[in-house]
Amino acid sequence: MATVDLNCDMGESFGAYSIGADAEVMPYITSANIACGFHGGDPSVMRETVRLAMEHGVAVGAHPGLPDLVGFGRRTMDVSAQDAYDMIVYQLGAMMATAAALGARVAHVKAHGALYNMAAAKAPLADAIARAVHDVDESLVLFGLAGSHIIAAGEKLGLRTASEVFADRNYMPDGSLVPRSRPDAMVESAEVAVRRAVEMVQRGRVTSVEGQELSLRADTICLHGDGAHAGDFARALRAGLEAAGVTVRAATL
Amino acid sequence: MATVDLNCDMGESFGAYSIGADAEVMPYITSANIACGFHGGDPSVMRETVRLAMEHGVAVGAHPGLPDLVGFGRRTMDVSAQDAYDMIVYQLGAMMATAAALGARVAHVKAHGALYNMAAAKAPLADAIARAVHDVDESLVLFGLAGSHIIAAGEKLGLRTASEVFADRNYMPDGSLVPRSRPDAMVESAEVAVRRAVEMVQRGRVTSVEGQELSLRADTICLHGDGAHAGDFARALRAGLEAAGVTVRAATL
Amino acid sequence: MATVDLNCDMGESFGAYSIGADAEVMPYITSANIACGFHGGDPSVMRETVRLAMEHGVAVGAHPGLPDLVGFGRRTMDVSAQDAYDMIVYQLGAMMATAAALGARVAHVKAHGALYNMAAAKAPLADAIARAVHDVDESLVLFGLAGSHIIAAGEKLGLRTASEVFADRNYMPDGSLVPRSRPDAMVESAEVAVRRAVEMVQRGRVTSVEGQELSLRADTICLHGDGAHAGDFARALRAGLEAAGVTVRAATL
Amino acid sequence: MATVDLNCDMGESFGAYSIGADAEVMPYITSANIACGFHGGDPSVMRETVRLAMEHGVAVGAHPGLPDLVGFGRRTMDVSAQDAYDMIVYQLGAMMATAAALGARVAHVKAHGALYNMAAAKAPLADAIARAVHDVDESLVLFGLAGSHIIAAGEKLGLRTASEVFADRNYMPDGSLVPRSRPDAMVESAEVAVRRAVEMVQRGRVTSVEGQELSLRADTICLHGDGAHAGDFARALRAGLEAAGVTVRAATL
Repeated sequence: MATVDLNCDMGESFGAYSIGADAEVMPYITSANIACGFHGGDPSVMRETVRLAMEHGVAVGAHPGLPDLVGFGRRTMDVSAQDAYDMIVYQLGAMMATAAALGARVAHVKAHGALYNMAAAKAPLADAIARAVHDVDESLVLFGLAGSHIIAAGEKLGLRTASEVFADRNYMPDGSLVPRSRPDAMVESAEVAVRRAVEMVQRGRVTSVEGQELSLRADTICLHGDGAHAGDFARALRAGLEAAGVTVRAATL
Repeated sequence: MATVDLNCDMGESFGAYSIGADAEVMPYITSANIACGFHGGDPSVMRETVRLAMEHGVAVGAHPGLPDLVGFGRRTMDVSAQDAYDMIVYQLGAMMATAAALGARVAHVKAHGALYNMAAAKAPLADAIARAVHDVDESLVLFGLAGSHIIAAGEKLGLRTASEVFADRNYMPDGSLVPRSRPDAMVESAEVAVRRAVEMVQRGRVTSVEGQELSLRADTICLHGDGAHAGDFARALRAGLEAAGVTVRAATL
Repeated sequence: MATVDLNCDMGESFGAYSIGADAEVMPYITSANIACGFHGGDPSVMRETVRLAMEHGVAVGAHPGLPDLVGFGRRTMDVSAQDAYDMIVYQLGAMMATAAALGARVAHVKAHGALYNMAAAKAPLADAIARAVHDVDESLVLFGLAGSHIIAAGEKLGLRTASEVFADRNYMPDGSLVPRSRPDAMVESAEVAVRRAVEMVQRGRVTSVEGQELSLRADTICLHGDGAHAGDFARALRAGLEAAGVTVRAATL
Repeated sequence: MATVDLNCDMGESFGAYSIGADAEVMPYITSANIACGFHGGDPSVMRETVRLAMEHGVAVGAHPGLPDLVGFGRRTMDVSAQDAYDMIVYQLGAMMATAAALGARVAHVKAHGALYNMAAAKAPLADAIARAVHDVDESLVLFGLAGSHIIAAGEKLGLRTASEVFADRNYMPDGSLVPRSRPDAMVESAEVAVRRAVEMVQRGRVTSVEGQELSLRADTICLHGDGAHAGDFARALRAGLEAAGVTVRAATL
């Protein structure tokens, strides 16, 4: 029987600033990627978000990003592999202590925004990030774009990995995501998105934006936690997967 | 036979900016309080400083501060006890992972600058800081001003504590430090400072700036890591203590 | 005939984070205090907010704050008078250039949050802030709490000042605001708040939280730009003032 | 008779952190590019550096950079043209007010580090930066790499420009600088560097790292303000130019 994890970026609020529909989405997901204070999040938001995840039995993950708060970690920065290593170690540790203080533990790591994309596309950066996770705690599960360098880098080091797919994003023929700058980046219909998710999980296939069938591994599906209907879509996606006979549970169990 | 620890604030450089005589002082101390990126330090500096401490067999400690880089964590901020708790957890975790990635572990925690002074003087803040340390790892040793609230707060929670004294600072009759704004804040003569240190360790006594004899517990002596002669003073202090028969070793052993 | 200005803090969003009901409130006010990037705001938000103010014929003001983004500038920090001077000059200049690039000019300056309160209560800080404004541009109007040090400091230097009152805050017998930590800090009823505002403007009087009548000068009334009903209250306040025969216009005209 | 400006990056210290040999170099230069708080500098350092420039009769310039303090503005970031525009306006204004408060004025603008390189190489970014300078104050002089996009962008808008050359850097055959990652990036000999500078100013020529003669316009020569011998080299370069009959004066006079 097919099994999949539902993950969502969480805890990206900062100080007086609120962002994301964490409370609406948390009941439907199985893994929370919690921001670690660089691109979003702060020590208090991290604590509150870990607690919220614990209340819903959701696996706690670290979601480290670039040190670019005003750009929300979305702008590519020319960081060295060593800098990437160091910033992953730092943020991961901050999250681990936050979880430990609440009696929880961090189960996985997923890079954020531009760092996620750089880790998918550039082998040296992927290696540095995987090594950082490995050096801090070998039992952590590394999340990353299915079929990309980060998954390969994790496997090379013997880390458990979770290949990530996107229900509401279109794919290029090479398996990368259609850039957000294109009008067809998103799958607009929630119904279609749910159907695609089921197909990715059950058959390991998705149709690219140009019509080809692509093979891809779907250990975990990324939900978007913002937007007006984030909670509704999360509920619909979970219900659709379960109705199709898919077991939804954390990739880190 | 009397025993004491020598500690120094370390790793306060940031990016392109260098500060402190870490390499000169490290050979003579037994505990390094390493900045955690809020008042100083960054993920790369943290890694390099932990490595330097390891090379010299010096105990690694976390040195968390206020989120005030431009003020170097020296300006009192009206942070809540909860905020203090959260920022200690965060910084401590970042340092623990940095150490773990190098095969080391954090042995102690000492707050920096204004946070140190606030923890000494205000019971609710002291309690929050001690609780943060306790909640992350009960085996950590809490450093703080001898006779102050932070030591009491740590003991109340069952934490091991290390009462800190200053060789080169003058004391008020109530056991607090003479404020830096006064001309007689510092003990200018290195020779006098060493003699005072020996007396504090061996007899548990120091003469206040107004002439009274004060009792105080000296588990660890704070060295200053900046200034032109930081390395020379560190060597002289260590030599003076050992010549007087004092064993110098980490408080966390 | 009585005249008053309506001012509101604006442009406090930051990067991906939105805060405040700027678009809803702007049509009803006459002076916008626009955050300058320290406690909130960023260069892009500043530009967009100046443009919004211009579209509504609202006077553009600088709203400098403490360098404490995570605390939204609300935490008292022990900054020196020189530091306060320097940070006002910096932020004011950033806003002046932002306005100049759009063909507008900055008309007034109002400190934010903890800096506002410190400027009201501490003469040396008030002097430093007033001097900063004076040294950059003597034609700027200095906004501050009616009857407080900052108004006196501005007058001493020959600056035009605008004494600020709060429609929806209760006053202590000494003319300071009831601290937000008290349950009676706010005037909860919009209707009462409007009535109080009219009385402050027309009669220069307000009833303290303990029942005394206080005299105070009301050149400008502060509106709060957040909360669910910020736009509604702004419209009601403006309508109430105009219905009572009060002319509402910028204090800097 | 040939004339040239000598410029140097200045005021890049931050809070407790000192960097650069500003006091040693300032006597020999004619234009100071003063950091504006993003990649380095802070409001107090800016004030002190403007004052130092004024004492030596050196022209005050703004030296805006990317918002990357830990990377000292040296890491390429994928900022949009609009973001670049906004950050130039902001930083330029901050510097203008700092100067105004001391009775000085900003004469020129030179982007820092990665922003300088991006402005040289990418036309849309060059246009945005030039437009920002133009929109704030058309009388400002725009400094940039000789022969690059930023000079063209400034000229297109009618700004005065100053084409910059480097005495101690080697050039590629296409007129760009040899990347710092190459071992032959720098001209190591001070004597050779002075001779090259004289030739660039008097003959408009420099020999590339591969031996070709390149034509280039040398309105201003960049000195490096760090390194052990920054002051000595500045004095030698100025003396060498003057001995060769070159008049050294600010490009903005």
